[in-house]
Amino acid sequence: MKSDIPVTSLQRLPVYLNYLKTSGNGEQYISSGAIARALSLGEVLVRKDLAFTSAQGRTRVGYVREELIAALEEYLGCNNRKTAAIFGAGGLGSALLSYGGFGNYGIDVVAAFDNDSAKIGGEIGGKPVFDINEAREKTRELDVKLAVICVPAKYAKDVADVLVDCGVRAILNFAPVLLKVPEGFVVRNIDVAANLAILSVTQ
Amino acid sequence: MKSDIPVTSLQRLPVYLNYLKTSGNGEQYISSGAIARALSLGEVLVRKDLAFTSAQGRTRVGYVREELIAALEEYLGCNNRKTAAIFGAGGLGSALLSYGGFGNYGIDVVAAFDNDSAKIGGEIGGKPVFDINEAREKTRELDVKLAVICVPAKYAKDVADVLVDCGVRAILNFAPVLLKVPEGFVVRNIDVAANLAILSVTQ
Repeated sequence: MKSDIPVTSLQRLPVYLNYLKTSGNGEQYISSGAIARALSLGEVLVRKDLAFTSAQGRTRVGYVREELIAALEEYLGCNNRKTAAIFGAGGLGSALLSYGGFGNYGIDVVAAFDNDSAKIGGEIGGKPVFDINEAREKTRELDVKLAVICVPAKYAKDVADVLVDCGVRAILNFAPVLLKVPEGFVVRNIDVAANLAILSVTQ
Repeated sequence: MKSDIPVTSLQRLPVYLNYLKTSGNGEQYISSGAIARALSLGEVLVRKDLAFTSAQGRTRVGYVREELIAALEEYLGCNNRKTAAIFGAGGLGSALLSYGGFGNYGIDVVAAFDNDSAKIGGEIGGKPVFDINEAREKTRELDVKLAVICVPAKYAKDVADVLVDCGVRAILNFAPVLLKVPEGFVVRNIDVAANLAILSVTQ
């Protein structure tokens, strides 16, 4: 589904959505040119990206703002509730459990999993922390579709294997190891330290 | 500097480095083909990426592992100490202050900045928390070259403006707003919720 959109275009859609939701003073229309200028992107690129959604731009006036927002939200599945779980309730995991921004994308973070008996059975950010050994049953029970891996590097592969086994098809991985998953599953690896290092090389 | 390397190649260099550092059983050589297979990448691509570093592959045997690791570390500036600061000592900021992985890339996180008087003057992860209003003087005093923005969305632009003003040229931004910086500065925006939403669209 939606595999025809280039990843780079897909990555820009939330950026357009954020921009549209945080700008504007009640204007009804917005042009691709205005979006392009505000975000320092090419206008043709913006039009191509937005063409993947159901939004229809009109000559001269551009897009109806509310329609464009709705089209982006629809494309990104924001109105489509999906359940996520956080694996590893350490510093980063705890921060994500308390983070309010997932709801904008229809993502409902329902639980965390950890191996620390001091955390298991408790709550963080109002979400229950379960034993990682119960992940198989609990992810099925809670119908978890998305997972964020925040465990130390040495545990990340094992957690990913469990997730694949449970059919959790989308995994965001913050552990600094490259995780590979079978076809039909997607993983995105975000190594914070590597990202910062890369920035320092390019500046 | 190093502006000739495509961003996508640059982003893969830490992945190669991580792989090389966590694999191998004392073998002296590693071929581009072996790296490509392990990471599910094309062999030509791997060779092209590695050609940006000073490593020299040899016909049939490949790269000397230790030389390739050293070349990647040199390219990524891992042996080149640089000072970073965390802006926003909330959940994510605190997690990053306690995270040990920055040292692998020569990044020394030295301080945090926040506007919460309960945190200012204290320490998190052994790092001092300063008043955000002192950012101008402190970043100069500490020679901060890199910054990670972990403040709520509404404060992110102000923090970025201060950083630009202080000449902190590389910024990693976790606030869910698109930050723009003048030429000569680089910013990388990582919106965790958007990343997870994108994953759920593609799977």
